[in-house]
Amino acid sequence: MTEVEADEAGVRAANSAFYAALEARDLDAMADVWEHSDRIVVTHPGWPMLRGWARVAGSWDAIFRNTGYIQFVLTGDEVAVVGDVAWVTLDENILQATGGPDDGAADTQELSGARIAAVNVFVRARDGWRMVLHHGSPVSAGAPDA
Amino acid sequence: MTEVEADEAGVRAANSAFYAALEARDLDAMADVWEHSDRIVVTHPGWPMLRGWARVAGSWDAIFRNTGYIQFVLTGDEVAVVGDVAWVTLDENILQATGGPDDGAADTQELSGARIAAVNVFVRARDGWRMVLHHGSPVSAGAPDA
Repeated sequence: MTEVEADEAGVRAANSAFYAALEARDLDAMADVWEHSDRIVVTHPGWPMLRGWARVAGSWDAIFRNTGYIQFVLTGDEVAVVGDVAWVTLDENILQATGGPDDGAADTQELSGARIAAVNVFVRARDGWRMVLHHGSPVSAGAPDA
Repeated sequence: MTEVEADEAGVRAANSAFYAALEARDLDAMADVWEHSDRIVVTHPGWPMLRGWARVAGSWDAIFRNTGYIQFVLTGDEVAVVGDVAWVTLDENILQATGGPDDGAADTQELSGARIAAVNVFVRARDGWRMVLHHGSPVSAGAPDA
């Protein structure tokens, strides 16, 4: 495996760990994915930008508590690596149940689908790649090429 | 000026050139801002992700032809530089007229406002910084902290 291939594989592993933490609604796993610093930024679909680990973690906590079930089918993903920075661009095809996970039986929850265009930026750390930015935005049904 | 300050100033200049090209609806100036490659990506608010210089340029051309007037007030901008990559996160507070610029007198056009959360990624070139990614997403009026 060349250095370039190894870098790309490392970035893909970090990106997969992010979506695994999200699907599992596991805040500890999500904490392992992110750099814990002031420069990190998350923009959830329709939300304002949130900066710094405290706000980023708080937003995941809120989302996990209000999501009963969430599944991601990722399509069109592309990885770019320049030195110690990498970014992954992809479409998140999401199937999710809204309402708290303890609201009742899963089969009584409402399921909804959405297509989100997303970019994930990672910075190389000593032991892997850490997420420094996640930005997802809804793709309108009527958008060009949608 | 330290090297870090010089890098940040260079990135801010490239970011300003992007919004100047956008406000001027100047496709040549926009072409100077971007890296002309296959890895570049633009996601306009509500649009699907568009890859590569041909599609990126085409989207700006379409937007410029359908925008009579557009003004950006940028707030909360933060710059991060890691090696040869930089990213700028900011809020775009947009005032714009819709309809083609030749549709009639500016004062008969409809003006609308919007708040867009945006990230701009740049890569260092020999003669400055080139944009490789722009992703803007609408902030909902009812969003937390909006």
